[in-house]
Amino acid sequence: MTGHRDFDGWSPQGPVEELSDESCWSLLALESFGRLAVSVGDRPQIFPVDFHSDGRDILFRTAAGGKLEALTGNPAVAFEVDLRTRTEAWSIVIDGTAHRVTNADEIAIADRAPLPVWIPTDPYVYVRITPTSIRGRRFVHSLMHDG
Amino acid sequence: MTGHRDFDGWSPQGPVEELSDESCWSLLALESFGRLAVSVGDRPQIFPVDFHSDGRDILFRTAAGGKLEALTGNPAVAFEVDLRTRTEAWSIVIDGTAHRVTNADEIAIADRAPLPVWIPTDPYVYVRITPTSIRGRRFVHSLMHDG
Repeated sequence: MTGHRDFDGWSPQGPVEELSDESCWSLLALESFGRLAVSVGDRPQIFPVDFHSDGRDILFRTAAGGKLEALTGNPAVAFEVDLRTRTEAWSIVIDGTAHRVTNADEIAIADRAPLPVWIPTDPYVYVRITPTSIRGRRFVHSLMHDG
Repeated sequence: MTGHRDFDGWSPQGPVEELSDESCWSLLALESFGRLAVSVGDRPQIFPVDFHSDGRDILFRTAAGGKLEALTGNPAVAFEVDLRTRTEAWSIVIDGTAHRVTNADEIAIADRAPLPVWIPTDPYVYVRITPTSIRGRRFVHSLMHDG
């Protein structure tokens, strides 16, 4: 679990720390809310989404509508999750490909994922983001270095 | 201040409430952290940014690098700010155009904006997002309706 060692350590060199892939997935496992960016006709769209990560990809649920339409023709996505406190912040960005989950076995697995239900959206579909890259950065408040 | 009335009221119709433009700007005035989405070669990129809103547009600071390069050729942006608590969540999305602030008077005004400094980034430039549309939605946790 070298990822945890990276995750717990502060960068002595400066206020920005690059997180290892393993640290990124460890942080994502603790979170359930992120933002999805999609390009539609060369213009960006951004949507807040509840998600679940199983450590390899990102799963979310969506109803018919703008988000699903945007994804259908434009599967290249960026997905961002962050956390900010008074003294530090981190942000993780995944580049990947979104695809609708259609296989019955996969849907059965997705049905058991701990996805929050904020809005009753029935019927809905599951969308899975397969990452092509993941990047995490932690920012330490400069006051912590000055003080 | 009808915006505040909208902001304080819960939608009796259901768990999703559309926020008025005035409510959106009132909420943005209280926040300082959002996410910027840009399309580069028809692929989305997403960046966390500290921002300041003066009630009409969005101002942020950035150093030379990927974000500024992405914006230079692709000024169409989406900008999202959200807040989530245990019982509710809201999200505001602005579609707009980003442009670098070059006028000396505008830079002097930007220098006085309460932008947080997390990372010493010198030299930096100011970027202003001029909105073409703003949309805010509040989501109420369904348990609040059931219970």
